[in-house]
Amino acid sequence: MKSVLVVGTGLIGASVGLALKDAGFGGKVVGYDTSAEELAAALAMGAVDEALARCEDVLDARADVTVLATPVLPILDWMQKLAPVLGEGQLVTDVGSTKREIAMLGAKLFGNTKQSRFLPGHPMAGKESGGAKLAEAALFRGSTWLFTPIEKPQSGSKDNRPQSNPEDDQASEMELAWRAMVARFGAQVRDVEAEKHDEICAWVSHLPQYLSTALAALLEDTFAGDEEGFRAMQAIGGRALRETTRLGASPYSMWRDVALTNTENVAQTLLALEQRLAHVRENLKTPELREEFRTANRFRVGR
Amino acid sequence: MKSVLVVGTGLIGASVGLALKDAGFGGKVVGYDTSAEELAAALAMGAVDEALARCEDVLDARADVTVLATPVLPILDWMQKLAPVLGEGQLVTDVGSTKREIAMLGAKLFGNTKQSRFLPGHPMAGKESGGAKLAEAALFRGSTWLFTPIEKPQSGSKDNRPQSNPEDDQASEMELAWRAMVARFGAQVRDVEAEKHDEICAWVSHLPQYLSTALAALLEDTFAGDEEGFRAMQAIGGRALRETTRLGASPYSMWRDVALTNTENVAQTLLALEQRLAHVRENLKTPELREEFRTANRFRVGR
Repeated sequence: MKSVLVVGTGLIGASVGLALKDAGFGGKVVGYDTSAEELAAALAMGAVDEALARCEDVLDARADVTVLATPVLPILDWMQKLAPVLGEGQLVTDVGSTKREIAMLGAKLFGNTKQSRFLPGHPMAGKESGGAKLAEAALFRGSTWLFTPIEKPQSGSKDNRPQSNPEDDQASEMELAWRAMVARFGAQVRDVEAEKHDEICAWVSHLPQYLSTALAALLEDTFAGDEEGFRAMQAIGGRALRETTRLGASPYSMWRDVALTNTENVAQTLLALEQRLAHVRENLKTPELREEFRTANRFRVGR
Repeated sequence: MKSVLVVGTGLIGASVGLALKDAGFGGKVVGYDTSAEELAAALAMGAVDEALARCEDVLDARADVTVLATPVLPILDWMQKLAPVLGEGQLVTDVGSTKREIAMLGAKLFGNTKQSRFLPGHPMAGKESGGAKLAEAALFRGSTWLFTPIEKPQSGSKDNRPQSNPEDDQASEMELAWRAMVARFGAQVRDVEAEKHDEICAWVSHLPQYLSTALAALLEDTFAGDEEGFRAMQAIGGRALRETTRLGASPYSMWRDVALTNTENVAQTLLALEQRLAHVRENLKTPELREEFRTANRFRVGR
């Protein structure tokens, strides 16, 4: 692995660049972003060595590893553009928040060779605000970096060969190099099936996000016209308020694509939470509230 | 102020004891708790100098300031018991999470003298787990400590005097001493009307709590029977999950009383959040989601 191209040099993309440097990567890191400002910031902070000016330059770059670090919909676009020009031995990977649509398109576009050319990925790291300026080399340290390797098409392959044997699917040299590099970022690498990824992430990442957005928006609307109440809320609100509304600052651009590409799972978790809140509300004065606290007290995940 | 009696030596009560020592209070701190274990822990860590063995001892203690640091319902009980035995110049204060019922009962029991004898209070500090062992002298540093001074009864006083003039209501020497001490704990002292307190706290404290409980209980139930999913969730869940479910560990004993004494406000905030989540759910694929993020992005309270 001698060159890495980062497409989208925002918080995650620029952090990948910094983490590469920090891990002692001696090759070249090239960056591209539709925002000249983000790209300049990534260049200025040394997250990328070289900035590509035009979208077409990305297709000519021929990096060993191309990291798609944009929201999900542009990732799908870039996959379409890169598939026809991807050379032998090169790898495309991504950091998108949902994986089902990406893995499906990846199988279609990149799945027709024995060795992997596309590796869907998702680092479980981030901040409530985006942008290269908040990037950190240590962003992935101690977090989990998920991969959802694509399955080879089971039918319809050109040579009509029988169902592929999983042992035929080989991780390419570049895939192994990228996995090793991610481990050097300090992340725990873990493989998960793409459908399962989207199901679990709906619960542990997407639901907390839309919940925080809804709560922050609700509080904003409730107190917007009430200056005295607003000041009191500012003074009174402590850690509980901060933590449950922190993600309200997250950008729409990223979460629109999550909503569009994991709609069913997200809707299901939101509905379940609505019903659970109604259950608590209807039982504020009954012993059922005790059961709810007991169940919640048993929950120890993520702590 | 030469002696302080802390009734309820759990997290808050024991932290008050430690904060008193830390602030250089030279008098005696006496403690009582229905749990011998909590009381022993508070004594062992030096949060109290002396432990009272029996409930009756509390009524004989005659401390300058008595701090009721139990859940709200026992606070109401203690107020009833203490009112008849409270001597001149002594003060009772509390740290209960809801203030309307406490202030109302306080006005009835303690409001018939010119100088204040009861001062409802609420430090906006705590942890998701209770108990003396987690107590800290610095728990209140940088937080807000609210007081909701009781209003004198406007009618029905024994001497049938005309409506009391606010200037007649005097903070007692002991109230001033306690307020000064709380400031020395490093807390920001702020007065607020009791009804307003319960309204605002429903939004910034109680709603985040019941929400975290509901979310943690929902996740516990969803993943309880699915060992593989549970392990994946543990690996994948990051800060967003931790923060939104942290308060799921909070004890029922405290939050039962909040639910019982602020029912209407809490129910209203829960219903509003249910509706807001439904709104997000119904608009996962519409431009309305952008508006929701824009509104949430404007919310800057508590950060």
